[in-house]
Amino acid sequence: MKPYKELSHEELTALRIELNEEFDEIKKKGLSLDMSRGKPCAEQLDISMAMMDVLHGNADLKCETGVDCRNYGVIDGIPEAKRLLGAMSEVDPDNIIIFGNSSLNVMFDSIARSMTHGVMGNTPWCKLDKVKFLCPVPGYDRHFKITEFFGIEMINVPMSPTGPDMDMVEELVSSDPAVKGIWCVPKYSNPQGYTYSPETVRRFAGLKPAAPDFRIYWDNAYSIHHLYKENQDYLAEILHECANAGNPDIVYKFTSTSKVSFPGSGIAAVAASKANLEDFRKYMRIQTIGHDKLNQLRHVRFFKDLHGLHVHMHKHADIIRPRFELVLKTLDQEIGELGIGEWTRPHGGYFISFDSMEGCAKRIVALAKEAGVVLTEAGATYPYGKDPHDSNIRIAPTFPSMEELGEAVKVFVLCVKKASVEKLLEEKA
Amino acid sequence: MKPYKELSHEELTALRIELNEEFDEIKKKGLSLDMSRGKPCAEQLDISMAMMDVLHGNADLKCETGVDCRNYGVIDGIPEAKRLLGAMSEVDPDNIIIFGNSSLNVMFDSIARSMTHGVMGNTPWCKLDKVKFLCPVPGYDRHFKITEFFGIEMINVPMSPTGPDMDMVEELVSSDPAVKGIWCVPKYSNPQGYTYSPETVRRFAGLKPAAPDFRIYWDNAYSIHHLYKENQDYLAEILHECANAGNPDIVYKFTSTSKVSFPGSGIAAVAASKANLEDFRKYMRIQTIGHDKLNQLRHVRFFKDLHGLHVHMHKHADIIRPRFELVLKTLDQEIGELGIGEWTRPHGGYFISFDSMEGCAKRIVALAKEAGVVLTEAGATYPYGKDPHDSNIRIAPTFPSMEELGEAVKVFVLCVKKASVEKLLEEKA
Repeated sequence: MKPYKELSHEELTALRIELNEEFDEIKKKGLSLDMSRGKPCAEQLDISMAMMDVLHGNADLKCETGVDCRNYGVIDGIPEAKRLLGAMSEVDPDNIIIFGNSSLNVMFDSIARSMTHGVMGNTPWCKLDKVKFLCPVPGYDRHFKITEFFGIEMINVPMSPTGPDMDMVEELVSSDPAVKGIWCVPKYSNPQGYTYSPETVRRFAGLKPAAPDFRIYWDNAYSIHHLYKENQDYLAEILHECANAGNPDIVYKFTSTSKVSFPGSGIAAVAASKANLEDFRKYMRIQTIGHDKLNQLRHVRFFKDLHGLHVHMHKHADIIRPRFELVLKTLDQEIGELGIGEWTRPHGGYFISFDSMEGCAKRIVALAKEAGVVLTEAGATYPYGKDPHDSNIRIAPTFPSMEELGEAVKVFVLCVKKASVEKLLEEKA
Repeated sequence: MKPYKELSHEELTALRIELNEEFDEIKKKGLSLDMSRGKPCAEQLDISMAMMDVLHGNADLKCETGVDCRNYGVIDGIPEAKRLLGAMSEVDPDNIIIFGNSSLNVMFDSIARSMTHGVMGNTPWCKLDKVKFLCPVPGYDRHFKITEFFGIEMINVPMSPTGPDMDMVEELVSSDPAVKGIWCVPKYSNPQGYTYSPETVRRFAGLKPAAPDFRIYWDNAYSIHHLYKENQDYLAEILHECANAGNPDIVYKFTSTSKVSFPGSGIAAVAASKANLEDFRKYMRIQTIGHDKLNQLRHVRFFKDLHGLHVHMHKHADIIRPRFELVLKTLDQEIGELGIGEWTRPHGGYFISFDSMEGCAKRIVALAKEAGVVLTEAGATYPYGKDPHDSNIRIAPTFPSMEELGEAVKVFVLCVKKASVEKLLEEKA
């Protein structure tokens, strides 16, 4: 098949009739499929079911320091949980605080804390005229929603396969004291599955911010979420790099077991310098008597150590790898040569990033919805929901069954074709 | 024994020598006892151990609407958890949001939300020159820490056995638009164990605040925490009263299962009008993907319904009632006729409130510490840690064993006597 752009007006018109017929056929099926969110499938949740049994009615529920995990106490995590999440985060347990069930909640609270109380003694952001965040795009919609919610101005920074445009990041961070942070998903990024290069990490660590309270929000959500036993991406450890660069306090590194054990019933952690952690603790001591230590204990007794986590993640990979491969194979076969879209080939994480022809993403998502397939809203991967090219679509292949996914991708591909032909005809008109 | 105030200088001097000797003897024991916090004892935690088994590795972990509780989704609680906590809160499940493991955290977040985003469209408090909260005293130290942390000015309102001084509350709330809230523990109050009278509740419901964003923070922490099967206090239901008074949005009612199942691993809830809950949800949708639904399910499957909760609370009562009675009996016997202290006789909750002679509380707590018994810090029951009379001490009898408690109360009584004699001699000097 020729690239669509080389087709004549007549060829496109004929193709449109053909695609419309296919589309009407598919609509008749009354599908109801969802490729919108990065949710594990039931099969993935099943591999953690034994976790339900590790804390049973006769179990000793004391942590290694003898604290009864059933009772109040221990504000920042039991030692064995710090060790487990420390290993997962590649930092010393002393640089870890364990939180509740959601790292997103911790990021939100970190912004809220900065608004009302400031960062390590600096002016609370709510007292400033303007606060700005840098947002590598496309990126994670829920990050952008947090900064939008607090009235923080967001500045798009283009992503590349090696990470954000670091010339632009360095320029903005060093020149503008209103720039207080940057959202990063540095490994298997959401939505592209890119991993920041060692050079990018070093440049982050060496930033010279105009604002003393600038922080890198390093959301390492997919640190051990590989798709392959080989072909794993490597991410340099940011805390270590920052300390080396004389910038020990510049980063908050977030992680959680949401996509390791159970989403919503996992445990979250922050890795940061001791000065930063003390800033967190000052807030926590007022905010709560402590997080759920039984769930911390449950995780430690189930996974035991980093090796246990890795073994478990292989099982996840075995379940979701075929789903990624199915999507990629279908895209390759169906539109690989048509010049109407580009997509990423991640080695891990939860998403494939698809870029349609400019101005087609909203139409594709709307068409898919009409045909019974829910995709992440077009624009969601950009601050304020505004994709300046209207081209990026996040594909989340993990949740549907293989059969459903097969159907959903076929619908997706058809919608891409249909929207592209419409666009090209519109341009020729 | 005569009241201390009727003793002569010589009698007091002789008594002091005697008490000092006793004190020195006790110090030699090298005790290490804790009556400081409202923590359940291990025996109480044991009665919930079967909860560890209700969600086992072969259990169906779907809630009644078919949602897989292991996965993301359901921002404000599974229906059966809303029903359980709704019954516990005496409101319709539609007026309930289920949160994470800590109602204190929800109170904190409610203040944080009001600071940055305002209450139901009103000006964010961080944009105001002055925000004030009314604090019935003595009260719960962690409440006061939250408002202090956010720079909110706290105004003491005296408590009585029927609740706060409502003339003062009505006057301040109706005249000063800077007054945005009041902290209440309306049933088995912390620390006195008082329960607000129906008249007090009605007057709360009928408040005419100068501030449209004034809210009653109704921390119903001890709603079902009776010590006796009979002699239970009755608290009128505030949401119902407020709706009747044409004030449906004036109250947030907080509750949790922290002292029902496991402290730190329970579930928390807010009961409020639908307009208020929507205000909470706007924040929650950005803050988190959802709370721990497995723990919600675990609670529902274990307790089943309100009857199950009550049966369980009887077991708690059977364990802690003897502790309360031991403290009261010792106080009665040892200092009942000495005129050097007064104390409450609660029918529920976790505390006994003790008032020493004016100016003696700090000294008593310091002496007890010297003798190896940790009490709640003197002053803690007042905003800013400042008890204007230096007389209130919160006694928490639940955590120590009966044997330890017996020793601890003996130490306490001795310290009260010693501090009182010192004070009387000082006054005579």
